[in-house]
Amino acid sequence: MDREQFRAAAHAAIDDIINHFDSLPERRVLPTIEPGYLRPQIPENPPIEPQPWSEIQADIESKIQPGLTHWQSPNFMAFFPASVTYPSILGEMYSAAFTAPAFNWICSPACTELESIVMDWVAKALGLPKCFLSTSENRGGGVIQGTASESVATMLIAARERRARELTFAEGVKDNGSAEYEDHMCAHRAKLVALSSDQAHSSVAKAALVAGTRFRSIPTSLEDNVELTAKSLRATLTKVEEEQGLVPFFINFTMGTTNSCAVDRFAELKAVLNERESWRRIWVHIDAAYAGAALVEDEYQHIAQNFAEGVDSFNMNMHKWLLVNFDASCLFVRNRTDLTNALDITPAYLRNPYSETGTVVDYRNWQISLGRRFRSLKIWFVMRSYGLNGMKAHIRKGIKLGNLFAEKVQSRPELFEIVTKPAFALTVLRVRSSAASSAFTSNGTNGDNGTSEVAKHGVAQVDEKANEITKKVYELINSRGEVFLTSSVIAGIYVIRVVGVSPQADEAHTLRAFDILVKTTEEVLRG
Amino acid sequence: MDREQFRAAAHAAIDDIINHFDSLPERRVLPTIEPGYLRPQIPENPPIEPQPWSEIQADIESKIQPGLTHWQSPNFMAFFPASVTYPSILGEMYSAAFTAPAFNWICSPACTELESIVMDWVAKALGLPKCFLSTSENRGGGVIQGTASESVATMLIAARERRARELTFAEGVKDNGSAEYEDHMCAHRAKLVALSSDQAHSSVAKAALVAGTRFRSIPTSLEDNVELTAKSLRATLTKVEEEQGLVPFFINFTMGTTNSCAVDRFAELKAVLNERESWRRIWVHIDAAYAGAALVEDEYQHIAQNFAEGVDSFNMNMHKWLLVNFDASCLFVRNRTDLTNALDITPAYLRNPYSETGTVVDYRNWQISLGRRFRSLKIWFVMRSYGLNGMKAHIRKGIKLGNLFAEKVQSRPELFEIVTKPAFALTVLRVRSSAASSAFTSNGTNGDNGTSEVAKHGVAQVDEKANEITKKVYELINSRGEVFLTSSVIAGIYVIRVVGVSPQADEAHTLRAFDILVKTTEEVLRG
Repeated sequence: MDREQFRAAAHAAIDDIINHFDSLPERRVLPTIEPGYLRPQIPENPPIEPQPWSEIQADIESKIQPGLTHWQSPNFMAFFPASVTYPSILGEMYSAAFTAPAFNWICSPACTELESIVMDWVAKALGLPKCFLSTSENRGGGVIQGTASESVATMLIAARERRARELTFAEGVKDNGSAEYEDHMCAHRAKLVALSSDQAHSSVAKAALVAGTRFRSIPTSLEDNVELTAKSLRATLTKVEEEQGLVPFFINFTMGTTNSCAVDRFAELKAVLNERESWRRIWVHIDAAYAGAALVEDEYQHIAQNFAEGVDSFNMNMHKWLLVNFDASCLFVRNRTDLTNALDITPAYLRNPYSETGTVVDYRNWQISLGRRFRSLKIWFVMRSYGLNGMKAHIRKGIKLGNLFAEKVQSRPELFEIVTKPAFALTVLRVRSSAASSAFTSNGTNGDNGTSEVAKHGVAQVDEKANEITKKVYELINSRGEVFLTSSVIAGIYVIRVVGVSPQADEAHTLRAFDILVKTTEEVLRG
Repeated sequence: MDREQFRAAAHAAIDDIINHFDSLPERRVLPTIEPGYLRPQIPENPPIEPQPWSEIQADIESKIQPGLTHWQSPNFMAFFPASVTYPSILGEMYSAAFTAPAFNWICSPACTELESIVMDWVAKALGLPKCFLSTSENRGGGVIQGTASESVATMLIAARERRARELTFAEGVKDNGSAEYEDHMCAHRAKLVALSSDQAHSSVAKAALVAGTRFRSIPTSLEDNVELTAKSLRATLTKVEEEQGLVPFFINFTMGTTNSCAVDRFAELKAVLNERESWRRIWVHIDAAYAGAALVEDEYQHIAQNFAEGVDSFNMNMHKWLLVNFDASCLFVRNRTDLTNALDITPAYLRNPYSETGTVVDYRNWQISLGRRFRSLKIWFVMRSYGLNGMKAHIRKGIKLGNLFAEKVQSRPELFEIVTKPAFALTVLRVRSSAASSAFTSNGTNGDNGTSEVAKHGVAQVDEKANEITKKVYELINSRGEVFLTSSVIAGIYVIRVVGVSPQADEAHTLRAFDILVKTTEEVLRG
């Protein structure tokens, strides 16, 4: 493909992309194909001779589009959102053109330096405490990781090494590459235990699995809106330490849990960690993957003040709710030395005068992978194209749509029950089993379960019948692909999660989704 | 940015990108800026109000370009190459537009299915044994990872869990979530040791660090062209097992080491692993990150036949020498169950009927991260745009340029010594210290070292004076930024590595690089 063929192909691709976004509201959000749809449509072997772009491009619409789930559709209300914006796509274009697996400064200085600067911009936009700026005296700073899972795994590994080294050094054993040092490190690693609330994202447990450490989840309850509390944390820490003889070394607190956007009670949790010297040594990571985006709005910035002390690291994904396409997980650490102590391996072929003298940042020592993409470009383009005011407006719109949806659900208490406190545009609900009884009754069937699911102390109780009906409603909605929702299970309660904050979404989409929820529920109740 | 603003901006970006590639041969390959060049040019805070694209775009040329290292320049001859081609950029554009963190099948079926199909294409193009196809009876298959470091870390973790489980099960302890099971797993993990040749990429040692296991490197020697041999492997395995009481569980063999493109002696190494039952349990990974690309050429495909048996996984990076931009690390496994056993954590909100019934692949269980980009598009576009014949021609051209450079070096034996066997377009050389003596002599200085560096048994010997001169030549060449080379140290010998296989490179660039090498060497020798 020469320069003019590329220019023509790229222009055609741009037209395709614009048409794609324009057509999103009309497309089904979920595809109708069945597993294995694509293989029969693609030749078994790669072509021997080159093919023209026109032939390739035609296959995108005919073969790929039918198999896409449209995360940017205004009718996508599942999981958490995945933003794409035009300036972000421009960032990917330049990033591809300037490809450099920029594992150290000299491998493309602009890539490293723009990342440090733009991460400082992000920290300021989110109102994070100064300790997370690259210019801080405590040697903090931000780095772009691919995903929140990668961020938490990297933090957990750094924490594992920090704690194992502390314990080994405390025994008078030095890091001199000896078998003795290695034995002590391995013995300590085997006793370490990572923790998070049972509402934390599964990536925390997976990170412990990756790092080869033990993991314990800390119970939460609906009485506390599934927020992690001091009492529960203290009980679990005491148990693992005193009864199980383990060493807690890493704990993940969440701002906006996956199930329900619960916010762990940071202030009281940090106070617990101050109660014992061994607990003060625990690495505290804040996972704000989705809800962290809300920190750009002034009214939420007070939350970030909790991270000024007693927090080692924080991450939020701009690729969820903050207008940058996947991947753009922004990870901030208080002390970069904790990272480089754990992850720096420098062979001869990676040595260079800039890195040796410590005048530059080598981000390869801040992550698991060696090479890295030029991801700061897209963040830079988006922050400049929207401005802080544009980003705030986007978050405010999402919150408003979320509030509208929650109000609509609350307006039909005979059908629905809100299970956790609506937060950050997410509503978590279930269908009441009493609604089934009424429906059955009105159909002439006997209603036998009129009150069993009624909340005790205002908190939803496990109700198998409600679980069954809610599951049916959920599966019927998704099978039709007009909107895409997610189900989950919280404290034994089968719930439907609804969060629709696509940049294209407006009130009409929110109301339509609620309408589909009501109609499908009524349909299920009618049998 | 609305649709028409985007169309205009994207057209301007395309022009920029084409001009960028056209200008590469004339640009310095290395930038002239100093560390910290960018921060004074960027405002301290993100803008409050939106900025127009014209303002942003202007900053790319004025602020970013001056800080780029041009990996696509025909004068880039450092590390290994990083390809970018026009069809690959088109792939990134569609990938960004179709953004979906496609962690399971339903989250964008096309993303998962195209990846399986295209990875089968890649396996066939490389002539890999059938066991690595997704359609194989042994449940093999390919997955796109970000980097070779990520690939090897993922394999090492899967290997760690496979071996620790085997040992735990052998003790009659079941995987039932009990404290007993956890204790046994932790105790076994603490005894595991990963291995690779001392010439393997540093990412193997880093992977062991990530996984929290021990690591040993196995010595190689210049007498064997730094290829890993049976004798050395057997000696190290016996030592770690019998003297140190450790359990070897993972070994990395390399096709094309980073220093010198050495190829480990697969056949004899596999025979060693067959000598003991405990060694047969070791996970064998083949790292062919760079040189694996050469397998598309018929004359190299016999190498891949070594992987038909006794190899658990294989990776090569298309983003090095195979025309796809970073990131595109192609990882193939013989048994996907080994991976999913280690990495599958499925919380309620990720459950769905397709995944539950096992009818689909969920790639999140094949990697460390949860979310993933739609990377198969760019591979698909490149393979179709070039065809197998175009890819073969690209590799042949690189080999030819590499051979030319090596011949030129060999044509000046009074100045240079080839340190390892040239391979896969890479030449590894040093400046002879006798050249200095001659130069000093001809300058009237006394030559005192005329023969000490002469190869014994045809193998280069450590020579401090040669090291010193070679380092000076290397640093002077890179400081001028006309070509970019890499230095390294092999068996105590300071070497310069030269590998120039950019799609834009031709004989003129190869000859120019050699000319710069000769002139700079003569300049250094003159003092």
